[in-house]
Amino acid sequence: MLATSPLARPFPDAPLIAGATARVARAGYKDWGRCDLTFVELDEGTTVAGVTTTNICCSSEVELCRLNIKGGTARALVVNAGNSNAFTGRRGLEAVEAITTKVATHLGCSSNHVFVSSTGVIGVPLPKEKAEAGLTAIFKAEPCSWKDVADTIGTTDTFAKGAVASVMVDGVKVNIVGIIKGSGMIAPDMATMLGYIFTDAAVDAAFLQHLISESSQKSFNCITVDSDTSTSDTVLAFATGAAGNTPLSSFADSGADAFASAFQDVCLQLAHLVVRDGEGAQKFIAITVSGAVDNSSARRVGLAIANSPLVKTAIAGEDANWGRVVMAVGKAGEPADRDKLSIRFGATLVAQNGLSVEGYDEAPVAAHLKGHDIDINVDLGLGNGQATVWTCDLSHGYISINADYRS
Amino acid sequence: MLATSPLARPFPDAPLIAGATARVARAGYKDWGRCDLTFVELDEGTTVAGVTTTNICCSSEVELCRLNIKGGTARALVVNAGNSNAFTGRRGLEAVEAITTKVATHLGCSSNHVFVSSTGVIGVPLPKEKAEAGLTAIFKAEPCSWKDVADTIGTTDTFAKGAVASVMVDGVKVNIVGIIKGSGMIAPDMATMLGYIFTDAAVDAAFLQHLISESSQKSFNCITVDSDTSTSDTVLAFATGAAGNTPLSSFADSGADAFASAFQDVCLQLAHLVVRDGEGAQKFIAITVSGAVDNSSARRVGLAIANSPLVKTAIAGEDANWGRVVMAVGKAGEPADRDKLSIRFGATLVAQNGLSVEGYDEAPVAAHLKGHDIDINVDLGLGNGQATVWTCDLSHGYISINADYRS
Repeated sequence: MLATSPLARPFPDAPLIAGATARVARAGYKDWGRCDLTFVELDEGTTVAGVTTTNICCSSEVELCRLNIKGGTARALVVNAGNSNAFTGRRGLEAVEAITTKVATHLGCSSNHVFVSSTGVIGVPLPKEKAEAGLTAIFKAEPCSWKDVADTIGTTDTFAKGAVASVMVDGVKVNIVGIIKGSGMIAPDMATMLGYIFTDAAVDAAFLQHLISESSQKSFNCITVDSDTSTSDTVLAFATGAAGNTPLSSFADSGADAFASAFQDVCLQLAHLVVRDGEGAQKFIAITVSGAVDNSSARRVGLAIANSPLVKTAIAGEDANWGRVVMAVGKAGEPADRDKLSIRFGATLVAQNGLSVEGYDEAPVAAHLKGHDIDINVDLGLGNGQATVWTCDLSHGYISINADYRS
Repeated sequence: MLATSPLARPFPDAPLIAGATARVARAGYKDWGRCDLTFVELDEGTTVAGVTTTNICCSSEVELCRLNIKGGTARALVVNAGNSNAFTGRRGLEAVEAITTKVATHLGCSSNHVFVSSTGVIGVPLPKEKAEAGLTAIFKAEPCSWKDVADTIGTTDTFAKGAVASVMVDGVKVNIVGIIKGSGMIAPDMATMLGYIFTDAAVDAAFLQHLISESSQKSFNCITVDSDTSTSDTVLAFATGAAGNTPLSSFADSGADAFASAFQDVCLQLAHLVVRDGEGAQKFIAITVSGAVDNSSARRVGLAIANSPLVKTAIAGEDANWGRVVMAVGKAGEPADRDKLSIRFGATLVAQNGLSVEGYDEAPVAAHLKGHDIDINVDLGLGNGQATVWTCDLSHGYISINADYRS
């Protein structure tokens, strides 16, 4: 059992979402005494949207999600914890099909409306019998809280992660609840990022897809723990419509801006929580790149810094080693000019115009680096492109989790 | 003082190279009691070629090397250890110009024929006075061995690295000696890869450039320790011509093939030695990718595997975690098909056609992973593209070197 991350945040006070009923049970995918199966029943009329990993070697679950998202309709979500079912070929696919068939029969819906995710060990087919027995039990279980769901979908996570928001749309209050699991952004053998957002708002599937795609660009796609990309990453959003607002279908609709803003905020909170549970993380690092030729370039430079083992170990060592930041900027392959670059740690300018700032006050820099939340600001001095990405430090804890313990 | 890498190799019995005279001295760039300044005088008629870092934020030394290489002529090499002089702006450039001017005056040559490299702390201008005083001393020093040079150019290196070859060209025996420094492939604050190859063969500058560019593709460009790209990386080749062969100018010349082969071999040996001194390295990992759509694609897939922190920590933990290899293949962004992939650790097939090989013999895999030299073979099953890349594991030693000790 890993100790709770020093960067953990408490689980928020999450409201129930009308039209979405969650239950958990113990399928026993691993030899552990905890729930590892989640079933969320969604009322008729629920729309769905989502984003999945770009990893080519993805799991059958991911392929099925991609396919079913196109239909825009969801009646159920099933999440298995402890076995990712990735790289398991035909037998893995059979297990997923057994789950969708059993749930569709139970609900009297199309199996194309059942979404499945699995997370855990790679290369071992999900045991079909355990999944089926688990579902039989879960159908009879009492509804549970979102905190219970967050605990159940986790694997190596050291704390339950959730985010909430509420906003007025079309004269009615709508709620948004998001939960996520992941730690070591993306360790295909035990971690993997899986996120789910539930709202009682009525939102057309196409607009919901637009919101999640856009929001991901500035949240889930701007975080990195170790640069590795999971075979199972999935974020799904479900809108039950139970709040009774006129369905949102574009930004022209009343309340759409407010809803989009709240939705984006939930995505960003969830993304940050994954970094806060990064394997071995002791520091939460926000890297803001400004002055790039455009926003995409700024993001790529930011990720080059965030993925640099030398930058990440320097922060672990509380060392204001801006030379490593310069190096990471230079290797990003984006437009940059050594002699126009400036770098801040916290609020302190440490390098400017291709030179170290002579005699800068080291005390506030040292104090900043001793904290849990680290800000690195890089201005490229070329244009107006800007982006912020988030990562954690690279510590002995990461090595211990990934090398010392066997999978 | 770091312990010698368990993967170290002894320095070879390196012959003198007629026309290249090396001397070392102590400039005192750091507070250490060792030589840190190298001067190699090259006879008139010496040709030069080289490759340098692609990092945009490179040092003045690198910019000067790139410029001077175009002339094809060299009379001297100066290497400073302990200060990289990178990101030091105008004052850094002044120090380099002071060095080239002083050497050019001493030799009575153009300053464009003097090549300078510096390696060590970033962001601190190289102290010009120490460089000049060091040169005054070194001009009077006795010639030294290549081993002395290899020791002097090193910084955090834990052993002196060299490679030698000899071959018959045009009826005469020619020698090639290479030395290199680097550890943590590329840590701009203390390490950085600097390599120098000296031969008494006569080789036209253009052909020498062709050889070093081609050889680098399969050696220096196929190694990685931590995916970080130095601001100072440089490999230079000098051919004095003292052996008296008819100058080689193309592969049509007698002996050119043999020379090219020996030259390539020296480059590969040097590249491997850098990995063997990778920061914290306990395992030397060769990753061969076959069945790719072409050789470039195979190399990119190989580097994605070699740069994956999860793969590298698995090897550190002697864990045959092929799931992480699958993940790395999938994130490489190259053509791959999960269901055609096969993976071997050592000689043992562990995964094939999208599935774990059931009941494979784990004993030889475990024995292989306990050794120092690890082979991972990945066949993508798509085409004839093939490449081998080399890396080391990611261990607690890497974190200790880069986080626990301050720069």
